[in-house]
Amino acid sequence: MNNKTISLGNLAELIGGKVCGDSDLLIEGFSSLEMAGPGDITFVGKCDGSKLHEMTKASAVIVSLKIDSASLPVIQVGDQNLAGAKAHNYFLEENFIAKGIHDRAVIGENCKISSEITIKPNVTIGNACEIGARTIIEPGVVIDDRVVIGEDCIIKSNVTIEHDCSIGNEVTLHAGVVIGSDGFGYATDQLGNHVKRPQVGTVVIGDNVEIGANCCVDRATFGITEIQSGTKLDNLVQVAHNTNIGPNCIIVAQVALAGSVNLGRNVVIGGQAAVSGHNTLADGVMVAAKSGVHTDLPKGAVVGGTPSMPVKQWAKASSVFARLPELRKEVRTLRKELDLIKNIKD
Amino acid sequence: MNNKTISLGNLAELIGGKVCGDSDLLIEGFSSLEMAGPGDITFVGKCDGSKLHEMTKASAVIVSLKIDSASLPVIQVGDQNLAGAKAHNYFLEENFIAKGIHDRAVIGENCKISSEITIKPNVTIGNACEIGARTIIEPGVVIDDRVVIGEDCIIKSNVTIEHDCSIGNEVTLHAGVVIGSDGFGYATDQLGNHVKRPQVGTVVIGDNVEIGANCCVDRATFGITEIQSGTKLDNLVQVAHNTNIGPNCIIVAQVALAGSVNLGRNVVIGGQAAVSGHNTLADGVMVAAKSGVHTDLPKGAVVGGTPSMPVKQWAKASSVFARLPELRKEVRTLRKELDLIKNIKD
Amino acid sequence: MNNKTISLGNLAELIGGKVCGDSDLLIEGFSSLEMAGPGDITFVGKCDGSKLHEMTKASAVIVSLKIDSASLPVIQVGDQNLAGAKAHNYFLEENFIAKGIHDRAVIGENCKISSEITIKPNVTIGNACEIGARTIIEPGVVIDDRVVIGEDCIIKSNVTIEHDCSIGNEVTLHAGVVIGSDGFGYATDQLGNHVKRPQVGTVVIGDNVEIGANCCVDRATFGITEIQSGTKLDNLVQVAHNTNIGPNCIIVAQVALAGSVNLGRNVVIGGQAAVSGHNTLADGVMVAAKSGVHTDLPKGAVVGGTPSMPVKQWAKASSVFARLPELRKEVRTLRKELDLIKNIKD
Repeated sequence: MNNKTISLGNLAELIGGKVCGDSDLLIEGFSSLEMAGPGDITFVGKCDGSKLHEMTKASAVIVSLKIDSASLPVIQVGDQNLAGAKAHNYFLEENFIAKGIHDRAVIGENCKISSEITIKPNVTIGNACEIGARTIIEPGVVIDDRVVIGEDCIIKSNVTIEHDCSIGNEVTLHAGVVIGSDGFGYATDQLGNHVKRPQVGTVVIGDNVEIGANCCVDRATFGITEIQSGTKLDNLVQVAHNTNIGPNCIIVAQVALAGSVNLGRNVVIGGQAAVSGHNTLADGVMVAAKSGVHTDLPKGAVVGGTPSMPVKQWAKASSVFARLPELRKEVRTLRKELDLIKNIKD
Repeated sequence: MNNKTISLGNLAELIGGKVCGDSDLLIEGFSSLEMAGPGDITFVGKCDGSKLHEMTKASAVIVSLKIDSASLPVIQVGDQNLAGAKAHNYFLEENFIAKGIHDRAVIGENCKISSEITIKPNVTIGNACEIGARTIIEPGVVIDDRVVIGEDCIIKSNVTIEHDCSIGNEVTLHAGVVIGSDGFGYATDQLGNHVKRPQVGTVVIGDNVEIGANCCVDRATFGITEIQSGTKLDNLVQVAHNTNIGPNCIIVAQVALAGSVNLGRNVVIGGQAAVSGHNTLADGVMVAAKSGVHTDLPKGAVVGGTPSMPVKQWAKASSVFARLPELRKEVRTLRKELDLIKNIKD
Repeated sequence: MNNKTISLGNLAELIGGKVCGDSDLLIEGFSSLEMAGPGDITFVGKCDGSKLHEMTKASAVIVSLKIDSASLPVIQVGDQNLAGAKAHNYFLEENFIAKGIHDRAVIGENCKISSEITIKPNVTIGNACEIGARTIIEPGVVIDDRVVIGEDCIIKSNVTIEHDCSIGNEVTLHAGVVIGSDGFGYATDQLGNHVKRPQVGTVVIGDNVEIGANCCVDRATFGITEIQSGTKLDNLVQVAHNTNIGPNCIIVAQVALAGSVNLGRNVVIGGQAAVSGHNTLADGVMVAAKSGVHTDLPKGAVVGGTPSMPVKQWAKASSVFARLPELRKEVRTLRKELDLIKNIKD
C-alpha cells in the first residue's frame, strides 16, 4: 500500500486544473463519491456545488469548470473523468520491486531477461525469449520460443504467448489471453476434406496496449497480425489472422474481427459486434454494440445493425420494425378499401 | 465409484414422491431412459405407463402423477426433472477425501487453509488467502493475494482468481474462468489517448454459484461486482465491472452483461444476449437468446430482439420482417393503383 | 528449420498440377506473393500470366489452369488455394523428435504414455491416461483421469481436458481450450432454486480435428458430446452438452451450439451464429454469420437472420429493413390520399 500525500495545489497542477479553496490542503487518496472519506479527493459530474458536502465525505472534489461555488475545496477541470483518472493513478503509482525469477518457474535457453524482473511460480518460458525491465509475469503463464516482451508489462495468470510474437512496452495482458494461436485457414478438397493452410506469420502488439481476459489474437497466415499502440480490448474478443488494429482503438467485450480487417485510429467497436473479413474501417469509425459490418467504412462513420447502416437510420428502422404488425395491417386495410373503390368504379 | 443401494420406498421419500409397485425393490443407480439397466431407476416425461417396460431396461421409473397404470415399479412426482436430479445426485454423493496439498503446489505466506483440503499440482496460491474445508483446487489454478474461498468449493483447472476477491460456499468455477480481471474503464484525453481508470474494487460471489468454462467476471472500479447465491452461468459469459447479479439467475452461454447492470432474482438471460450498461432487470425477467437490452425492465418482463421488446411483439414483427419484400411490393402496387384512380378522377 | 529442396516437376506431382517451364528448377520454400523470394514458390488467383515476374520475386508460381502464358515457371492446378496449402505443408513437414517427459511435469499413476512423446514443463496428467505416439503436450496443460489422446496430436498451452474424455489422432487443441466441462443443466424447484442435473457423460473427438483457442466443449449429461473427424472450430466457440458435430464441419469464431444440436457432414456455421437446442442441420447446411437457427434445416439449406430464413430472402428483407422509415411514410401518404378520395366520393 502507498502512503502518498500531496497538496491540493500540487495535485491540481498534476491533473491540469485550478484550485478553489485551500491549496495547502493535504490529500492522501482518491475514491468514489460514495466511498471516499476524510483525506480523500473524489470527482463528480454535473452537480450543485453548494451541496458537495452533502454528497460525499471526501475532503476535496474534482468538479467541472462550470461550477460557480463549492461547499468543499475543489479542483476545477475541463474533464472530470480524465482528471479523476490521472489523480487516482497518481496515488496508486508504486516503485517497481523486482522479485526475480521464482525457482518454480521454468526458463529455456538463450533468453535475455532483465535483472529487474518478477517471474512468478509455475511460469514456463521457452528458448531465446527477451523480456524487458520491470515486467511482471504472473503464475501459469506460458511463453513460447523467441517471444519478445518489452518493459513495464504485466502478463497476468495463465496467459499463453505463442512462438515469435512480440509485445511492446507498458502492455497488460489479462488472465487467460492467447496471443499467436493459428489463424483459421483451410483449403477444401473435392471430397470436402479441409487441408490446413499453415499459419507462419506472427502477432505484433504495440506499446500501452491492454487486452482483456480470455481474448484470442491469432497469428497471421503470412506477415503479422497487429495491435497498435494505445489500443484497449475488453474481455473475450476475437482478433483473426492478419487483422490490423490501429492506435487508440476501443474494442468492447465479445467483439469478433475477422481475417485481414483493418481498423484506423480511435475506432470504437461496441460489444458483441463483428467486422467481416478484409474490410477497412477508417479513423474514428464507431460501430454500435451487436452490429455486423460487411463493408468498408469511411472516416467518422457511425453505424449500427446487421448489415450495418448509419446508426440514426438503424434506430429509425428499428423503431418501425417493432411496429411492423400494425404496418402490415394498415397495408391490408388499404388494399381492402382500394378494392372497394375499384369495385364501385367498375 | 459409489456402491449405494436404496429401497424404492426410501428413495421416494428422499425425492418427494409416492411409490406404485414394490417399495422394497433395491435401486443401485440412476441413468437415462436409453442407458439405464437392471438395478437402475430412470425418469420419463409424458408417456403411456403400460409401455414403460418397452421403453427402458431400468428396474424402476420416476413418472408424472398423471400416470394411471405402470408396467414397471414407479415413483410418481410432480416434477420428474427435479425428482430425477435429486435421485441422481443421491447416487453420486461421496464423502470428501482430503488429499492435502500436493508438493508441486506453491502456497504463499500467511494463508489459512483448512486441513481438510485437496490442492493439486501446479497450483499457485498467493499470500494471506483463506480456503475452507472440503474445497478442491484443481491443477493450474492461480489464486492471488488475499482471496477468500469458502467450504465445499470446486475450483477447476487453470482458473484465475485475482487479488482480494471472495468466493462463497459450494461454488464451482469451471476450467479457465477468470475472476477479478480489471473492469474496462478509460478516460480519453484530447489527443485520443486512453488513460486507465484504476479498477480498485473486487468481486464477491455468493454460495452455491456455478460459473461455466472460460467466463470472465471483472472486478469493480470501486466497490464490488457481485454474483449472488444460487446463480448459474454457462460458458464464455462476460460480466463487466460493478454488475450485480441477483440470486438464482440463469445466464446462458456467451451472454455479455455490461458495466453496472443489475439483475434481480431468478432472471433468465438466453445465449448470446446482452444487457447494456447501468440497466436494471427486475425479478423474474426473461431475455430471449441473442437479444440486446438497452433499458430497465420491470418484474416478470419477457423480451426479445435488439433493441428488445416484449417477446410476443418481437415474434410477430420478425414474422413480418421475413415477408418485407412482399409488403413493399404490395405498397408499390397500391401506389400504382391509387395513381391510376387519381388520374381517372382528374 | 527445414532445408527441403524439391524440383518443380516433383512438386507438381505432389500437389496434382502440370508444369509449364523448367521442371528441374529447384524449389526451397513457399511464401505469399508479396513475401516470397528467389527459391520460393508462391500462388496467385486470377492474373495476367505475362506479368507474374512483376508481381512476385518468387522463382515459380502456382496458377490456374486458365492461364495461357506465364512469365515465370508455373504449376497449373484446378484449385490454387488447395495446391498452395499442400505445397506449403510439404516444406513445413518435420520428423517428430521426442523430447520425453519434462521433470517439471506431473504424471499420475497407471498411465500408458508412448515413449515417442514430448510433454513439457508444468503439465499435469491424472491417473490411467493414455497418450499416443508423436503427441506434444505444451506447458500448463491439465489432463484429468482416464483421458485418452491419440497419436500425432498437439495439445497447446493451458488446455484443460476433463476426466474420461477421448481425443483421436492428429488433433490440435489450441491454447486455453476446455474439453469436458459440465453441461449446463438444472432442474428448478418451487422456490426457484436450481438443482444441478449431474453431467456424467463425456466428450469424444475424432481424428484430424482442430479446435481454436479458448473454445469450450461440454461433456454430455448422459452419453457423449461428439466432434467428428475432420471438423475445424475457430476460437471462442461454445459446444453444449450432447451436441454432435458431423465430419468436416467448419465452425467460425464465437459460434454457440446449444444442447443436443446435431450437425451433419460439411456444415458451415458463420461467426457469432447460434443454433438452439435439439435442432438438426443436415449435410452441407450453411449458416450466415450472426444468424440464429431455431429449427431443423434440410440438406444444403443456406440460411441467415434471426430467426433464420433462406439467406437470399434474408438479404432482401434486410435491404427493405434499412428503408422501413420510407416505407412507413409511403403507407401514411397512401392512407391520406385514399381518405381524400373516399371523402370526395362521399
